Amino acid sequence: MKINPLKGMKDYLPEEMRLRDYVQGRILETYRASGFERIATPMLEDIENLDKSDGGDNLNLIFKVLKRGDKLESALASGDEKALSDMGLRYDLTLPLSRYYAANREHLPHPFKVIQTDRVFRAERPQKGRMREFVQCDIDILGDDSINAEIELIDVTGRALLAIGFADFTVNINDRRMLRGMLSAMGFAKDSLDSVCITFDKLDKIGAAGVREELTGKGCPEAAVAALDAFLSSGDFSIERIAALLEDKSLADNLMKIIATVRSLAGDRYQIAYTPSLVRGQGYYTGVVFEVTCAAFAGAVAGGGRYDGMIGKFIGQDVPAVGFSIGFERICGILLEQGFKVPAVQKLALLYRPEVDFAEVLKKAERLRAEYAVTVLPQQKKLGRQLGNLEAAGYGAAAFFDNEEIKLLGQKEEA
Amino acid sequence: MKINPLKGMKDYLPEEMRLRDYVQGRILETYRASGFERIATPMLEDIENLDKSDGGDNLNLIFKVLKRGDKLESALASGDEKALSDMGLRYDLTLPLSRYYAANREHLPHPFKVIQTDRVFRAERPQKGRMREFVQCDIDILGDDSINAEIELIDVTGRALLAIGFADFTVNINDRRMLRGMLSAMGFAKDSLDSVCITFDKLDKIGAAGVREELTGKGCPEAAVAALDAFLSSGDFSIERIAALLEDKSLADNLMKIIATVRSLAGDRYQIAYTPSLVRGQGYYTGVVFEVTCAAFAGAVAGGGRYDGMIGKFIGQDVPAVGFSIGFERICGILLEQGFKVPAVQKLALLYRPEVDFAEVLKKAERLRAEYAVTVLPQQKKLGRQLGNLEAAGYGAAAFFDNEEIKLLGQKEEA
Repeated sequence: MKINPLKGMKDYLPEEMRLRDYVQGRILETYRASGFERIATPMLEDIENLDKSDGGDNLNLIFKVLKRGDKLESALASGDEKALSDMGLRYDLTLPLSRYYAANREHLPHPFKVIQTDRVFRAERPQKGRMREFVQCDIDILGDDSINAEIELIDVTGRALLAIGFADFTVNINDRRMLRGMLSAMGFAKDSLDSVCITFDKLDKIGAAGVREELTGKGCPEAAVAALDAFLSSGDFSIERIAALLEDKSLADNLMKIIATVRSLAGDRYQIAYTPSLVRGQGYYTGVVFEVTCAAFAGAVAGGGRYDGMIGKFIGQDVPAVGFSIGFERICGILLEQGFKVPAVQKLALLYRPEVDFAEVLKKAERLRAEYAVTVLPQQKKLGRQLGNLEAAGYGAAAFFDNEEIKLLGQKEEA
Repeated sequence: MKINPLKGMKDYLPEEMRLRDYVQGRILETYRASGFERIATPMLEDIENLDKSDGGDNLNLIFKVLKRGDKLESALASGDEKALSDMGLRYDLTLPLSRYYAANREHLPHPFKVIQTDRVFRAERPQKGRMREFVQCDIDILGDDSINAEIELIDVTGRALLAIGFADFTVNINDRRMLRGMLSAMGFAKDSLDSVCITFDKLDKIGAAGVREELTGKGCPEAAVAALDAFLSSGDFSIERIAALLEDKSLADNLMKIIATVRSLAGDRYQIAYTPSLVRGQGYYTGVVFEVTCAAFAGAVAGGGRYDGMIGKFIGQDVPAVGFSIGFERICGILLEQGFKVPAVQKLALLYRPEVDFAEVLKKAERLRAEYAVTVLPQQKKLGRQLGNLEAAGYGAAAFFDNEEIKLLGQKEEA
């Protein structure tokens, strides 16, 4: 039998798990203290829901579950490859949340401020920092169309990152509609805007010359490419300059208000930046998008935005929705690289000789649990070595069934 | 798009999730205080590992994941149905743990006392109390062949059940080898013992007459069936009587020692019973098995046993192993039916008029979070109705951005 976990998936050692539980615990504490409530949905969703979900590239990365029994037989007989599966593992927590809200909205408060922390699955080509199974920590506000929803999500997410000891990060903010309006005003065709945005989003990777080249290759009008190039060469990406290109100034006004408010909330604890090239991959975002970057990691450690159209796909009536997802795996990875230590619980090993009454050993352990996390272990002949191993494994103290001594490990002995 | 969760799977409302988080929290607290450490493994396992895992009926209930890309094409071309999938969703946490131990044993303490609380999947025909996706809470001790491992697991699991307010339960204990030894001594053929055990396990459902009939139908020797029938008719199922039928008395001695020790630990908090018909479904158990039953629910709420052969399948060398799994869903279901209330956090809603500075609202919320879990909400025109709704949604207090008043809900007003 194969002993390694599947490609792109991971076994977590106790030490890694302590870090993961700690990080998740602090995030949940912050979310809950801010009035958000946790829900859960199944790992599996109907395959049709997933297929129609506007998830961009993620739709190519769905793990599909094979039909069973008679249904599998008739699917095989039909020769239709798509008929082979009836469900799939979710690739994010946003589609399941939208379905959940549609199904349960009569039982939910309004607006609904919701927490999801759970696993998602993507059949990615495995590489450093990209797993096929990973945890996301999301908060969403459903039913609030005001910019206060965006502001609150950024404030809570910022505080959650601070609470886990994460520092030196920037929340980048944009409104997709402003970017599209600007590109449209420059002369790009309406139906090419998605494609142009994808190229523009790569600005920090391929530079202005790369953007120009790629757009020309895509057959965009020469004048539009030149206008964008002039804009990029100017080096002035201020919100005011872009607003000047747009007919409707309210988008820029709202974005400036969001930025000013979250700056006031962030103080000097973290940075807020207007990032006009920010798009985010998912097709379902409809307005403001945001992303947290930090010096320690290329790429985002959190991301989100407004997706007002998604729930409407289920109930035929749009519900305003905005979400912010913390990239839990990346945060844990960065903390691990930085040598972050989880605040330790005091662990004690209660050692006993095999011939004693084991019920009494466990009763003594239970008494010691008022103060320590207590493991019971048979005492080994080479006690010094055993105590050394316990210390190496993170035990702060050892006690003995036979006497009342408590030996502190890694320090001078005390009675 | 379909709004309901998939058949046999469930969306959890905030209120249900509070109960689930509370129950899991108390179980984890007890496990951790007892020196067990949490790990995690992927939801997906290699399909061959699952197929060869000795999981009994569960092997027919595996959700299989379709291959992707070229591999799927060639599997389809081969016409071999089994070739269509390369991985499957785990049906329990024991097989993944065995694989995990095989892969990571050099980094793990010895003995390894481990916690797993996570989801598993079975393609069951949905019915009340049987879900297709559900949570198990397991503890296992790997690398300890003494009966202290069994004793410790029963003690810790008993205390975990007590910690979540569960009472009036019985831990039923048996040793499969004793049952097999007894049946063998009665004249049943060695290679029929698995099948005979399955019938015998149904004793409490089909009665002695049903057992006799089913075994005769299976073609068992008449004399053996008659011997078993005489035994059942006698009504004396004491451990001493069964021990008298066996050559090797050490099994019965050990079982009596386990039972006496856990009785002493349980005191009058829960019951311990010797249950000679107890088998447990999984094929991988090799010795002592146990199961928790309670008056409130037909069927087990927790179960486990020793499975000394499983890890050897991975590394070619047996490692002693014993585990105890709490049926988390059943426990939650029973508590819900009993009207169990999760101890509440003090929730406060901070109400603001839309025209005020939202940054200041959030700053005030943050100050109030020193004492409360605080949600911010726009103040509605009909304040009385809004406060009533908040009270119904579990809020204990409301505060106002404009003044320092804190209104306690569901009680007389206080300044």
